[in-house]
Amino acid sequence: MSTFGTIFRVTTYGESHGKSVGCIVDGCPPGLPLVEADIQTQLSRRRPGQSNLTTPRDEKDLVAIQSGTEFGITLGTPIGLLVPNQDQRPHDYSETDLYPRPSHADWTYLEKYGVKASSGGGRASARETIGRVASGAIAEKYLKLAHGVEIVAFVSSVSNIAMSFIHEQDERLFPIDFWDFLNTVSREEIDKDDIRCPDKVITDQMKERILEAKASNDSVGGTVTCVIRNVPTGLGEPCFDKLEAKLAHAMLSIPATKGFEIGSGFKGTVLLGHQHNDPWIKTESGRLGTKTNNSGGIQGGITNGENIYFRVAFKPPATISQEQKTANYDGVDGVLAARGRHDPCVVPRAVPIVEAMAALVIMDALMIQQSRKTAASLLPLNSKIPPLMLGAIPKTQQNQ
Amino acid sequence: MSTFGTIFRVTTYGESHGKSVGCIVDGCPPGLPLVEADIQTQLSRRRPGQSNLTTPRDEKDLVAIQSGTEFGITLGTPIGLLVPNQDQRPHDYSETDLYPRPSHADWTYLEKYGVKASSGGGRASARETIGRVASGAIAEKYLKLAHGVEIVAFVSSVSNIAMSFIHEQDERLFPIDFWDFLNTVSREEIDKDDIRCPDKVITDQMKERILEAKASNDSVGGTVTCVIRNVPTGLGEPCFDKLEAKLAHAMLSIPATKGFEIGSGFKGTVLLGHQHNDPWIKTESGRLGTKTNNSGGIQGGITNGENIYFRVAFKPPATISQEQKTANYDGVDGVLAARGRHDPCVVPRAVPIVEAMAALVIMDALMIQQSRKTAASLLPLNSKIPPLMLGAIPKTQQNQ
Amino acid sequence: MSTFGTIFRVTTYGESHGKSVGCIVDGCPPGLPLVEADIQTQLSRRRPGQSNLTTPRDEKDLVAIQSGTEFGITLGTPIGLLVPNQDQRPHDYSETDLYPRPSHADWTYLEKYGVKASSGGGRASARETIGRVASGAIAEKYLKLAHGVEIVAFVSSVSNIAMSFIHEQDERLFPIDFWDFLNTVSREEIDKDDIRCPDKVITDQMKERILEAKASNDSVGGTVTCVIRNVPTGLGEPCFDKLEAKLAHAMLSIPATKGFEIGSGFKGTVLLGHQHNDPWIKTESGRLGTKTNNSGGIQGGITNGENIYFRVAFKPPATISQEQKTANYDGVDGVLAARGRHDPCVVPRAVPIVEAMAALVIMDALMIQQSRKTAASLLPLNSKIPPLMLGAIPKTQQNQ
Amino acid sequence: MSTFGTIFRVTTYGESHGKSVGCIVDGCPPGLPLVEADIQTQLSRRRPGQSNLTTPRDEKDLVAIQSGTEFGITLGTPIGLLVPNQDQRPHDYSETDLYPRPSHADWTYLEKYGVKASSGGGRASARETIGRVASGAIAEKYLKLAHGVEIVAFVSSVSNIAMSFIHEQDERLFPIDFWDFLNTVSREEIDKDDIRCPDKVITDQMKERILEAKASNDSVGGTVTCVIRNVPTGLGEPCFDKLEAKLAHAMLSIPATKGFEIGSGFKGTVLLGHQHNDPWIKTESGRLGTKTNNSGGIQGGITNGENIYFRVAFKPPATISQEQKTANYDGVDGVLAARGRHDPCVVPRAVPIVEAMAALVIMDALMIQQSRKTAASLLPLNSKIPPLMLGAIPKTQQNQ
Repeated sequence: MSTFGTIFRVTTYGESHGKSVGCIVDGCPPGLPLVEADIQTQLSRRRPGQSNLTTPRDEKDLVAIQSGTEFGITLGTPIGLLVPNQDQRPHDYSETDLYPRPSHADWTYLEKYGVKASSGGGRASARETIGRVASGAIAEKYLKLAHGVEIVAFVSSVSNIAMSFIHEQDERLFPIDFWDFLNTVSREEIDKDDIRCPDKVITDQMKERILEAKASNDSVGGTVTCVIRNVPTGLGEPCFDKLEAKLAHAMLSIPATKGFEIGSGFKGTVLLGHQHNDPWIKTESGRLGTKTNNSGGIQGGITNGENIYFRVAFKPPATISQEQKTANYDGVDGVLAARGRHDPCVVPRAVPIVEAMAALVIMDALMIQQSRKTAASLLPLNSKIPPLMLGAIPKTQQNQ
Repeated sequence: MSTFGTIFRVTTYGESHGKSVGCIVDGCPPGLPLVEADIQTQLSRRRPGQSNLTTPRDEKDLVAIQSGTEFGITLGTPIGLLVPNQDQRPHDYSETDLYPRPSHADWTYLEKYGVKASSGGGRASARETIGRVASGAIAEKYLKLAHGVEIVAFVSSVSNIAMSFIHEQDERLFPIDFWDFLNTVSREEIDKDDIRCPDKVITDQMKERILEAKASNDSVGGTVTCVIRNVPTGLGEPCFDKLEAKLAHAMLSIPATKGFEIGSGFKGTVLLGHQHNDPWIKTESGRLGTKTNNSGGIQGGITNGENIYFRVAFKPPATISQEQKTANYDGVDGVLAARGRHDPCVVPRAVPIVEAMAALVIMDALMIQQSRKTAASLLPLNSKIPPLMLGAIPKTQQNQ
Repeated sequence: MSTFGTIFRVTTYGESHGKSVGCIVDGCPPGLPLVEADIQTQLSRRRPGQSNLTTPRDEKDLVAIQSGTEFGITLGTPIGLLVPNQDQRPHDYSETDLYPRPSHADWTYLEKYGVKASSGGGRASARETIGRVASGAIAEKYLKLAHGVEIVAFVSSVSNIAMSFIHEQDERLFPIDFWDFLNTVSREEIDKDDIRCPDKVITDQMKERILEAKASNDSVGGTVTCVIRNVPTGLGEPCFDKLEAKLAHAMLSIPATKGFEIGSGFKGTVLLGHQHNDPWIKTESGRLGTKTNNSGGIQGGITNGENIYFRVAFKPPATISQEQKTANYDGVDGVLAARGRHDPCVVPRAVPIVEAMAALVIMDALMIQQSRKTAASLLPLNSKIPPLMLGAIPKTQQNQ
Repeated sequence: MSTFGTIFRVTTYGESHGKSVGCIVDGCPPGLPLVEADIQTQLSRRRPGQSNLTTPRDEKDLVAIQSGTEFGITLGTPIGLLVPNQDQRPHDYSETDLYPRPSHADWTYLEKYGVKASSGGGRASARETIGRVASGAIAEKYLKLAHGVEIVAFVSSVSNIAMSFIHEQDERLFPIDFWDFLNTVSREEIDKDDIRCPDKVITDQMKERILEAKASNDSVGGTVTCVIRNVPTGLGEPCFDKLEAKLAHAMLSIPATKGFEIGSGFKGTVLLGHQHNDPWIKTESGRLGTKTNNSGGIQGGITNGENIYFRVAFKPPATISQEQKTANYDGVDGVLAARGRHDPCVVPRAVPIVEAMAALVIMDALMIQQSRKTAASLLPLNSKIPPLMLGAIPKTQQNQ
């Protein structure tokens, strides 16, 4: 369905050619300062037409808050968000429409619904992600204000041009300084270059590869890596709703994604247990932390307070304007070349989408855990709990 | 939470040391022949103690149907399933319990709940997966009977010993015969070897690697690949609940998983769009199909009728009996060696768990789509629908 | 939360003083002809300012479809609906705002959220029901087209002026012709009088009572009765989601409601079992039906194909402009007289809201049941099912 | 479906003739002392065979906790509860089974599922309520310990023999002392008489009426009234999930219920607004309270801290052993007399079921509200909030 989340819950609507796209954010805590500008920043990072690396369509994507705030403060009631579409006419059908685009959603939508929207891709359009980015910006603002959470995504590879941590491999899996890098990488640094890759050694190669693809009416894929810092401990659920499962769900729901890995990921499968395990240490704050972070900040589905990091695979965009041998809806062979101008590579624009979906997952998990934690804290302390079951309860609160 | 699915919905309970583990399967179609033996087969494939590659604990894991069937036929009401635990006593605390096991859930559970279960890992125990496998077996039986769906998972790598399709790479990404192999690989073939890998060239190496790790009280990781055949078209949702997103959610909710990739996956990110796209062709049945299958059977979040296949990464098990330098709950450095006998490698036992979670995802998506499809089919045909919107409606039903 | 339904699912947003109110309808079957006029009819029946019996505020309430349709046909994707607010400014605070209105939501909202919206009542405003009526109109159109379902609500009492079926009582509970009346009462007939009561004998008394209350700056309550005809059998769930439970939920979620009764309701509690039971008979169509209908069309939570009918209690509106002795937020005694003009009686305007919520409940139950029914129908017939378990399966389909 | 609740969530299973009935309670706060005896008390109050007023079947109904506790303390993980069935054999079909029982679920189940369970009524059996009572006992224990919540239900009428507050009526609707009575009525007092009615003047008449019905193989209906004391303010949601809507949902999901009214209920519809409104006063604790309580403790869907009270209508049980003229499944007229012994009146046994469902509703609403409240409390205070929006924030926390 078109709803994501249990307590902090987003529902989206909208196709490319309707009057608007938008969403309803239900369950946002009251008292959060919120104006359009808080949301617009990330929407503008998602917007097409930012550079010659992405699609040149110039969509303004200005968001308007419909409800849920007053005097710039959230009321706790549903926040309606709306972004008008510039071109609202369903387009005229043409010869091109006789062909389902290869690896696109044209044919599967028709199989699913029995009717098909005019091109623009309906809900399969990247335009559907506007509601995600807008709602994610609200979640992120809360997380930042209340817990200092920081979410930073960046392009870690374009085609086979990749940041070193993806290639290098030793007993400890990641280059010596990768985890340190995750502690400091910032959105400001990422945005210094259109490509949104923080490794300046390879950004030129990446851009060149994209422009080559563009020149030949082709497309390229890539990966986006994301780190989430200062996440409270205890978020996520033991069984079906492990936090990494929710993150995987969120990321694989972004158009054009093909894979997700958290922490050591696929590379971690080649290590031995004694290499992969993250030993516990006492941190500067006096709490437990882990010396290494192959776990990616989550153990048993639940956050341990270390950085969460994961990587998402994006395929080369399906819509290309070079000619493709394929079949039309009737099964007759033919040649299709998509009209219009399309993204040769989505990963730079995917960065704020990945951040937004990450924010939605963390925010919902946080609110669920707050419910449980507050409920438990209101119980009278029980002298019958054996000492070993009380590890997390401050000694001063324990019955003597 | 402990519930998975919307219409076909599973809720599980149980820790290692309670009276039983089990689940409730709600929303199962009535009229399905179902007896314990239908469920036991997969439970026995999941069971520890099957070979010297896995944990030698001998748990019988006999399932008993509590409700929802009569005379061996499902009634449509909730199916209660129960598997007794052999050892129901919470164990005595010992020195070992003063240490949170590295990369295990001990500490995060304590952070989450403020109390901790005695060891055995509570809900983080692999025993929690019994409810998944049992309910998945029911979903699978329905899918097989009603649609001929076949789900086959297998071990595709142990440590760095991998089936060739993982290593090889050319313009079309997969070795020439990989997609053919997916058409024919069977569960019977998989089970001919304890390791559950169909590539006989490497099974001995895999087993040797596991026994080496076992001998040194260590553990190894690996990957499981799964193919789902004969999936009806139109399953999955456009936006947040894309079928690959639900599969990713399901797979990353299995203990010890670190990654998921569908179709071309991470390797697909290095291809160009014209290489990655799957051209449409007319199949023997007269319907559209795709010539290649980089998409992995899903486009725009919705099934296209081709084989679904994906790969899941499992880390080396965290519980190892060799000594590890770590800290105890109070942050004091020390040395921990887990007691008891543990799985040196989980991937052979993970095979039926992956199959079960895949079945749950497909079954729920199928029932949701059946609802929509039936609802649409009951509408009077509308002469105002332009011809191009009617692609999937048989010509005989169209208004003239 | 602000979402209602499982498969046919509505999410609403909006306060009185935001830019707009609206909703997202997710899960609507594709192929349904739908234009604004289909929705506007019911919105206009809900609109204030229709007569001197209700509030004289003149709100245009024109709905605009944002997404989910093309060429006047639903696509199966979420339908965004938006109704602009005329006055979007939060009002200036005044002396009146120092008092929580008695029996209104002012104080409870403040307790809940810790912030309060400027008056207009926030989400507690009747304006919130626009999204319900709009989405209900879509559900109703589908139900009508696909199943011939008819939903008719009417005012059955205003204060103590009530239609005869409410007062009369004999062994069979309802006046002899009440069930016949439910078979024929129509929306056209209801709308012939502003009061929306079909009993012409009492409509003048009802209107007089309302105008009296209006003249004394007071308000009156009443009841709305609703009948749903041609409901397919088998809708509703056995346990928590019995159809009457969902209807009760839906009705008690309408502002100002205090009670719900289905079929014989509270009066039925005084009958004996042999009087209350509805004997089975063969109907003209050859199917089973019931001779009487004390059950109200639902047995064991599931529809039996007879008319569903229920009654909803609405209290006198809380906002009255006569002076009330009460306390302000600080607990200081004082006198409050609400400003502005308010509904002296909500029941005439509540009629389309009751119909809308009824439509949402039936539509969702229908789609859930279609899922189960289709799923069961695709199973091969099982010769092991004992004959008595096969009652509903046509003999021609049974194994011989 | 068979699940109730969002954060505190119960899923039930079980028919009369399976191995057991039971439930899974998910989301229970950790640290709650819980042993079987805490649950058994309410189960035993629900049990048949307690007196000659109810069914003489002697079912032991002993509950066994399967998971989710250790050393008598909840772990925060799902609590599996199981109650074995005494007689697990599906009964032999007889002539009686050829008739769908009038006003029972036999025929509607068959319409819904296409198969039918052997008699005992499947999920429509009162035995299904065991899981509700067991899970409600857990919710109730938490509510009592953490918030001092008290839930007391009692029989307020049997047939037309009713407690005086139901009949009497004046400008203030309830007899002068009804609200006081609700402050003090206790479960101990209720249980002093088998009939579970606290009005000693009428208990003998009630019992006589039931025994009369029993003697003539007939049945009688009645009502149960329930009060919930010490409910925290702020529980419930503004729109679809108003607290009274959830209570109505919960109550109408209990077998044999036909109506629900909260606070002034149906009688309140005849009052004028100035009579019905509950003026605010400063209570002894210094907080706001209401002078009267026609609202029933809920305003705008949200609790105001006053007593919640509501009444539930139960029809006379459908299964009676006197002969009834009806039709069999094939539509042929005949005479049916139910075999076995049946409840002539369910209301005494319904008391703990009503309490249990009330506890489940309050508990879930509480946990959802705790999530929101904690989330809001963690935001830095905002100096831009106008003073009137800050009413509920203690002055000492406000920015100066």
